[in-house]
Amino acid sequence: MKTKKSRTEGSRYYPKRYDADPASRDAILDEGLVCHIAFNLQDQPFIIPTAYCRVGDTIYLHGSVGSHFFMQMAKGIPVCITVTHVDGLVLARSVFHHSMNYRSVVAFGKNRLVESDEERRLATEKFTEHVMPGRWSEARLPNAGEMKKTMFIAVEIEEASVKFRAHGVLDDPEDMELDVWAGVLPLKLVAQPPEADETGKAGLALPGYVRNYQRQVKDK
Amino acid sequence: MKTKKSRTEGSRYYPKRYDADPASRDAILDEGLVCHIAFNLQDQPFIIPTAYCRVGDTIYLHGSVGSHFFMQMAKGIPVCITVTHVDGLVLARSVFHHSMNYRSVVAFGKNRLVESDEERRLATEKFTEHVMPGRWSEARLPNAGEMKKTMFIAVEIEEASVKFRAHGVLDDPEDMELDVWAGVLPLKLVAQPPEADETGKAGLALPGYVRNYQRQVKDK
Repeated sequence: MKTKKSRTEGSRYYPKRYDADPASRDAILDEGLVCHIAFNLQDQPFIIPTAYCRVGDTIYLHGSVGSHFFMQMAKGIPVCITVTHVDGLVLARSVFHHSMNYRSVVAFGKNRLVESDEERRLATEKFTEHVMPGRWSEARLPNAGEMKKTMFIAVEIEEASVKFRAHGVLDDPEDMELDVWAGVLPLKLVAQPPEADETGKAGLALPGYVRNYQRQVKDK
Repeated sequence: MKTKKSRTEGSRYYPKRYDADPASRDAILDEGLVCHIAFNLQDQPFIIPTAYCRVGDTIYLHGSVGSHFFMQMAKGIPVCITVTHVDGLVLARSVFHHSMNYRSVVAFGKNRLVESDEERRLATEKFTEHVMPGRWSEARLPNAGEMKKTMFIAVEIEEASVKFRAHGVLDDPEDMELDVWAGVLPLKLVAQPPEADETGKAGLALPGYVRNYQRQVKDK
């Protein structure tokens, strides 16, 4: 698949933090809600945070028809897509060894406009189920007019760098007897109590997929 | 401050989602733990997720001396820095009107290597206090050897686009009577129980700044 010099060669420099297992890449992508996508216009890099979903080696993005950025994407300009999870704060005895536990995917690929109705419909379903599994079979599905207003871009992943830190404090031996509390403070994106929209039909039960919502967490 | 065509002119297209208040920019930046920074090498955009802190209009980044990316940054290549918070999932009655509540800053600026010892020391303190307020006065401070291993880059923000969505469901009138639960599921990055490092001195009390940790949340 590689058509030019690897864009992920950094893997060499800090091998302990790289993970070549494709399942790790997919787990990180599937847990994320927003990706950051970078592109370049006249030597100025831009980043857009946007929703996405993954199907195999394809990342789908969507936006309004006529969006400047999506028009550029449709032309196939090079992009970089990153998804990052912050899993915890590592509090060492020394400031220098403070760190964060995290998981990230930095992906490079070829992008194309999604044109077939079938793939556009599939991407819409995957988007919905990526964010809220169970929702597709309940919400009112898109009609032809709504589909016409939406543009889909597919980024076929060619290379991805999967990085993580998932361990405890690593202090210098001479600091171990200091009177400084050390440890990891884990962090997690947690659903708060749902806020029902009161403007429609009353008395509808809160769906189980909302009540029990959580992003999947893969242990490393 | 603007030296060329605005890089944030998108503000025109969806004015309701843009916020020109500098306090909003700062609140979003100060709440984040990781930023995404994009740069361009030979027409290929790259993104690196990395820790940061803000002092006034300056975003500080740090890395190991000799890091390829930081060496490029020190040369002053154009960058884009983005910080995004996902605040909730908006579940409309129709798939088409599903959305997310979020806040984001996309910032452009000039970067420079931080050379003075005083500014390097200040950045180290701000970094530590940005992630864990209270930690600087307790942890063992960096020594000269540790400071030598660390490189700091300052990005002076010239322009920033502050975007957000912070409201409830907006469905079409004809969908309001559907038997579909609709509402917002708020999301929050929440600290989980701290995991003490058991390899050092025993019996140290958990500091209050760890026990009560939360990222500041600004209401819109």
